[in-house]
Amino acid sequence: MQVVSDIASLKSIIEEKKQKGLSIGFVPTMGFLHEGHLFLMRMAKAENDFMVISIFVNPLQFGAGEDYEEYPRDLERDTKMAGSAGCDLIFSPTVKEMYPPGYATFVQVEKLTEGLCGASRPGHFLGVTTVVAKLFNLVRPDRAYFGQKDAQQAFVLKKMVEDLNMNLKVIVLPTVREPDGLAMSSRNKYLTPEQRKEAVVIYRSLREAEEQIRKGEREAGIIKENISKLILQAKHARVDYVEIVDSKELHPVSIIKDRCLIAVAAKFGKTRLIDNVLVEV
Amino acid sequence: MQVVSDIASLKSIIEEKKQKGLSIGFVPTMGFLHEGHLFLMRMAKAENDFMVISIFVNPLQFGAGEDYEEYPRDLERDTKMAGSAGCDLIFSPTVKEMYPPGYATFVQVEKLTEGLCGASRPGHFLGVTTVVAKLFNLVRPDRAYFGQKDAQQAFVLKKMVEDLNMNLKVIVLPTVREPDGLAMSSRNKYLTPEQRKEAVVIYRSLREAEEQIRKGEREAGIIKENISKLILQAKHARVDYVEIVDSKELHPVSIIKDRCLIAVAAKFGKTRLIDNVLVEV
Repeated sequence: MQVVSDIASLKSIIEEKKQKGLSIGFVPTMGFLHEGHLFLMRMAKAENDFMVISIFVNPLQFGAGEDYEEYPRDLERDTKMAGSAGCDLIFSPTVKEMYPPGYATFVQVEKLTEGLCGASRPGHFLGVTTVVAKLFNLVRPDRAYFGQKDAQQAFVLKKMVEDLNMNLKVIVLPTVREPDGLAMSSRNKYLTPEQRKEAVVIYRSLREAEEQIRKGEREAGIIKENISKLILQAKHARVDYVEIVDSKELHPVSIIKDRCLIAVAAKFGKTRLIDNVLVEV
Repeated sequence: MQVVSDIASLKSIIEEKKQKGLSIGFVPTMGFLHEGHLFLMRMAKAENDFMVISIFVNPLQFGAGEDYEEYPRDLERDTKMAGSAGCDLIFSPTVKEMYPPGYATFVQVEKLTEGLCGASRPGHFLGVTTVVAKLFNLVRPDRAYFGQKDAQQAFVLKKMVEDLNMNLKVIVLPTVREPDGLAMSSRNKYLTPEQRKEAVVIYRSLREAEEQIRKGEREAGIIKENISKLILQAKHARVDYVEIVDSKELHPVSIIKDRCLIAVAAKFGKTRLIDNVLVEV
């Protein structure tokens, strides 16, 4: 496995693989890898000849007052983990390499980015689409892999690839969870032991929503209220949003039908966690 | 030479050429080809194995009240001319093929797009960068060719390619002129015979500016005033802008030094024409 941090080295390795006709699988990450990332990597490795990950905490997708500075970083640990998942190449650039002085180009997906995390975190998705467009152009993957945990991100990136006619396939894989159901996230590290115990309430509330729907409930308002109520039973929890949206345009629905996404963002102390389930009726 | 209008056909032809390891030269156009386009095409043909042009009058780069509807279109004529310049493939999509319902992704280059034509035509460059990003992703060229006549466009597209790490080279070739010096443009067709005669004043004013600078004048204000005065001697002329900017950030300069761009936009009746020269002192 190689680890490169400069664009020139990355490009020359990618060009060599392309010349050989190898297919490239790509997993963009912000590092501090967990089992969710490793799952994406193993699938990327299985479905492609050459598997690349990027590790880059992208300042552009963090808002003022968010956790850009604190975001956990550990390249040595990440390198070992990526190697164990069959990674062939890690691209781990500096901020200056990705955004040199005078940087001025941005990719914006409208509409899909307006609600959910886009509403809570203005500018977040502009940062995500811009950095991922750059990484796609650099790595030139045949397939790129993302987790369902960041559901809106997956929708937005699929839309970007489709709209800009990018020459790759975006593949979204199921959320990997801790044994108690909490969605894997690098941010789980921030939680105090007490908050960590409480945080499981997010997924429990989503499971309960699924159960309500299975039993026939179709009123989004009732289901959302129940989710909020459950989450707020946790002492340190604050709800950022609880939303039920259609699975095409991510517009809030009042009556559940066809395929819907139930999405939650909640804060435990200063730590903001998200999770979601897709339901089909 | 092939002419295709759907993305699927284009992609399959490009994929086939890429598989064979052929280099691709690309000239994006809005059609109604003239000798300026043909010059770009001949160079693209000479420097690459396979030469592609696009013909697409891009609604996204026209503002309200501009000439999107009237813009001249003649695919039959264009096809013959492109063939004569060695074109291998014309991609001539419909608006719906490029911007299907629900289209929502845009590429924005900031700063460089603020002055000159960007100030006169809000949203113009957002339309240019978005469509060119799409075309680059579809055609996957090794080299793309643009004319110096649209100087700001060339700067902006180079910046987009650099910032987004697109895998191609932007090549800018000198403006091709009519025998009397008027820069070739599809919009010259709009001019009445009288306006056409008058329009040569644009290039004459730029030549005179070059002459002033050669003689030692360095005050941008004096040179700009002289250009405006000359242009306004033409009965049907109105000046949109006369600007002298540095050749890196396109910021207006007050004293001419190093490399500067002298850029003019003027209207003859309803027809807006642009031209420029690069000067080095």
